[in-house]
Amino acid sequence: MATHSPNPALEALVAAHAGTLADAIKAVETRNSWSPFADSPSTKIHGAEKPVAGKAAFEARLGRRFDLQQPGIVDWVGAETSPFTRQPLGITYPRSAPDALVAAAQGAMATWRHVDPEARIALCLEMARRLYDRNFEMAHAVMHVAGQSYVQAFSGSGPNALDRGIEALAYAAKAMRDVTPRVQWRRPFGRDDVRLEKRYTLVPRGIGLVICCASFPTWNAYPAIFANLATGNAAIVKPHPIAILPMAIVVDVARQVLAEYGQNPDLVTLAVDTPDAPVAQAFIDDPAVQIIDFTGSPRYGAVLERTIVGKLLFTETAGLNSVVVESTDDATATVRAIARSASLFSAQMCTSPQTIFIPAGGVRTPAGPMGAMDFARAVAAEIDAIADDPATAAGIMGAIQGEVSIKVIETLRQTLPQQPGVSILRDARPYAHPDHPDARTMTALVAVVPAALSHIYAEEQFAPVLFIVETADADEAVGLATSLAKEKGTISAYLYSTDEAFVERSVDAYAAAGANLSINLHGAMWINFAAAYSDYHVTGLNPAGNACLADLAFVASRFRIVQRRWPAAVA
Amino acid sequence: MATHSPNPALEALVAAHAGTLADAIKAVETRNSWSPFADSPSTKIHGAEKPVAGKAAFEARLGRRFDLQQPGIVDWVGAETSPFTRQPLGITYPRSAPDALVAAAQGAMATWRHVDPEARIALCLEMARRLYDRNFEMAHAVMHVAGQSYVQAFSGSGPNALDRGIEALAYAAKAMRDVTPRVQWRRPFGRDDVRLEKRYTLVPRGIGLVICCASFPTWNAYPAIFANLATGNAAIVKPHPIAILPMAIVVDVARQVLAEYGQNPDLVTLAVDTPDAPVAQAFIDDPAVQIIDFTGSPRYGAVLERTIVGKLLFTETAGLNSVVVESTDDATATVRAIARSASLFSAQMCTSPQTIFIPAGGVRTPAGPMGAMDFARAVAAEIDAIADDPATAAGIMGAIQGEVSIKVIETLRQTLPQQPGVSILRDARPYAHPDHPDARTMTALVAVVPAALSHIYAEEQFAPVLFIVETADADEAVGLATSLAKEKGTISAYLYSTDEAFVERSVDAYAAAGANLSINLHGAMWINFAAAYSDYHVTGLNPAGNACLADLAFVASRFRIVQRRWPAAVA
Repeated sequence: MATHSPNPALEALVAAHAGTLADAIKAVETRNSWSPFADSPSTKIHGAEKPVAGKAAFEARLGRRFDLQQPGIVDWVGAETSPFTRQPLGITYPRSAPDALVAAAQGAMATWRHVDPEARIALCLEMARRLYDRNFEMAHAVMHVAGQSYVQAFSGSGPNALDRGIEALAYAAKAMRDVTPRVQWRRPFGRDDVRLEKRYTLVPRGIGLVICCASFPTWNAYPAIFANLATGNAAIVKPHPIAILPMAIVVDVARQVLAEYGQNPDLVTLAVDTPDAPVAQAFIDDPAVQIIDFTGSPRYGAVLERTIVGKLLFTETAGLNSVVVESTDDATATVRAIARSASLFSAQMCTSPQTIFIPAGGVRTPAGPMGAMDFARAVAAEIDAIADDPATAAGIMGAIQGEVSIKVIETLRQTLPQQPGVSILRDARPYAHPDHPDARTMTALVAVVPAALSHIYAEEQFAPVLFIVETADADEAVGLATSLAKEKGTISAYLYSTDEAFVERSVDAYAAAGANLSINLHGAMWINFAAAYSDYHVTGLNPAGNACLADLAFVASRFRIVQRRWPAAVA
Repeated sequence: MATHSPNPALEALVAAHAGTLADAIKAVETRNSWSPFADSPSTKIHGAEKPVAGKAAFEARLGRRFDLQQPGIVDWVGAETSPFTRQPLGITYPRSAPDALVAAAQGAMATWRHVDPEARIALCLEMARRLYDRNFEMAHAVMHVAGQSYVQAFSGSGPNALDRGIEALAYAAKAMRDVTPRVQWRRPFGRDDVRLEKRYTLVPRGIGLVICCASFPTWNAYPAIFANLATGNAAIVKPHPIAILPMAIVVDVARQVLAEYGQNPDLVTLAVDTPDAPVAQAFIDDPAVQIIDFTGSPRYGAVLERTIVGKLLFTETAGLNSVVVESTDDATATVRAIARSASLFSAQMCTSPQTIFIPAGGVRTPAGPMGAMDFARAVAAEIDAIADDPATAAGIMGAIQGEVSIKVIETLRQTLPQQPGVSILRDARPYAHPDHPDARTMTALVAVVPAALSHIYAEEQFAPVLFIVETADADEAVGLATSLAKEKGTISAYLYSTDEAFVERSVDAYAAAGANLSINLHGAMWINFAAAYSDYHVTGLNPAGNACLADLAFVASRFRIVQRRWPAAVA
């Protein structure tokens, strides 16, 4: 890559972020724990003013237009409702004509692709830094569209998500730096000593469309947006129509940074739509759009996977996350770890466990075998303990984003009792949110379901629910868990066993099913926590998505290489 | 990656090839000239015996079954005809049931994916070494199915092609080594000091189908086969039904090497078919087949690009390669370079130039401007000089592989004279091959075509033909050349100009069109020569294909990463 930029401010920016980029590259290569950010909202870290200012910035947005000054504005739309207040946010966003956004992106790319890749990466790192700076505002935005708790919105949708974006930048840097910009090549052909100058130019693939999910919008959007920008492409960000605000803030910050450094802000635009008039397909069909990153429902993801041809498609949808409990040296800790992870964000995460397999002989514990019914009771009690403490429940469970999840629970409450052999150990019920009395909350339903009723436990239920299923033995449990992973997709699988031989003979089945596996996790870290730079997220080997956050494959095809060569001047 | 293999022979093989792999990685990173092979068939290099033995080995194949001892054999087919002798080779090959090949490949992959990636790469390097050892046999095989001259078959389908394969291995090594096999990760969560052991496992994507072209089968097959094997996948090789023998030799060697080192030979099998009963789709439709590498016609390539979803598809087809001649300091050398490259293998190469754009004011030369008609006459004379010297013609042009190319020429000979403004400067005609009087030969037709008749010069003609087209000026020529590249695809573009400002303002249009550009090439190296490790082949930015030989993108998605993690034992 060229080491000089025509823009001194850009050069300074590259220098300012060089250390962060080097550390990020080291982190993805070693997989050690690292982050340039603090993921706690504690005032000890951030001071007393920032939380207040962030909340005020969020509140100042309510009931107004969110002006992005982007091209082709047709009208203003927006109908977000807070899961905490059940009140409309009242914010409207510019809806632009797809043609106008594509034309603007193309125009911007004509210059952008000539900007030194190192400068493009530095601009993305600057966007990340500013987004971190505005993370208290972002936390409130995510809370009030997605329903995440304040703490989770701050960390999971803030630093943890920004880290995923920087991780993608690290891979983009690695992949682009791998292409030497030039060589003087020399080879004899017969009596001729041929010397050629060769230049290798990185050329962006084409406009990237980033389709964001409703429940955790920033986490996948940052990697996609940054990977596209770093490799010379533009990014058109299409938020879910019920979760626009966080992405509007992202687009706003990105456009500000671009403009400030003399770049065309139309490299990043917002493609707002409404549930009645979805707009994604218009972009997908446009020949100038060459890259689609999608996060969302398995149903729509599968449609995209079946219909998009001749373009790059990166998907993360969801799957069925299972837990196999063969044995444990601390049943209380195991039960707590599972119950807490199933309570986190009311199981609205792509890593939330749903189905727990218990061998018929019971889970081996120091106190003797623990059968499926006992295990289910213990899980139910642990969820009760969270639900009955409103402050704890609020911090862990947050709110339910969509009525759809409430309907899933209602249906289960009606149908499950009619199924032979099903025992409901814990009914789903709201908890009382201490700050938001109108919050749409729901705590998990816990049921023991016979292994024969796979139509119940072997389908992803996008709602707080835990099924406990008894299997003949632990090997059958692993067989079921891994075959479900292969068929239905999975993002995180969990296994508890103190039997090394059992673990040893099980892990390969998980690998073959493309299931990332957490074994015997207890304690303070959520078992479904995925750390950027260290934990690969989604394997691409089962229906839960084809893209991994992040690896070389996530970035290597977003740019192409064009060369030219000519006779070298002989000295 | 694990550094130990259970197999001492494999360990020794890894050590034996480590230097070659390290040199290949250095070569792709620096883009310097390098090869572990000699690409001349000279007896000074290889001795007197090997050429004789290679020819004898080829001849011993004729009229017999080529037994690969692969599973699921249904019958024996094969109807190859030598373009040099016009006689059938009489070789038949085992036709296996697709299901049987897929099942065998799946079975073999179950073990193969656990073999140390370094050992998998070493096995591929060993295959390459043995194929180089048998390259005289291969040269005759390629000659008598594809029509390449002996010298070209030896070099272009031998070492030059093997180098492309080793280049893919270098990238596979880089991409896989980029994934650390393990880390002990440590991060505080609240008061907990969490330490996790993490393991990262490379998991192959799925069976690779390698669809080979008829005219240059080994060149793209080696990279695809080796990239698949290195990343833990199996390769099912589907040769073109008129060019089976070279791929049968490749599969034979691969199976021998695998078996010799205790691996399942069914990792590489041959999927022979006939023109009447094509078999590729059966493999494409099989869920176990996850990777398709295709080299062949733009028509079939486009069908694959439009219809294959949810699988990895790498294509190289063809396009329209143009020459723009603005000015030259040596008109004779320029004319010769173009005429020779258009004569090489009778223009049956994906890098052969077809359409030459000349500004209306003429090409600026030291002797004054040279108009399109003069330029065309000079090119025609240069082709005459080759065609009239049978030994030279035989070495350069070889034979015409398919009757289809003869028909293209016949059609052009009939239709061109009826087009207004077309001047045929040189009629296409056979040359007399000195060794093979029955050889199907054809020397290039050279015609000046008005710029308005784009339906003639702007379509790829898979036959020896050169169109010279006059444009208003050189900038218009570049505009036409690059817009055709974008629309129709191109693999190699050529530009001649002594005007640095003109070159400077032209190169970006070529880059944007995804056209690899050779500027002012004269002399002993064929201007359409593409050197492995240095020249990227196909950009993926225009319809000539989506895959580049070779870059990280060619390998990075052929494997996926699965992780597991568990609490680290605290010391």
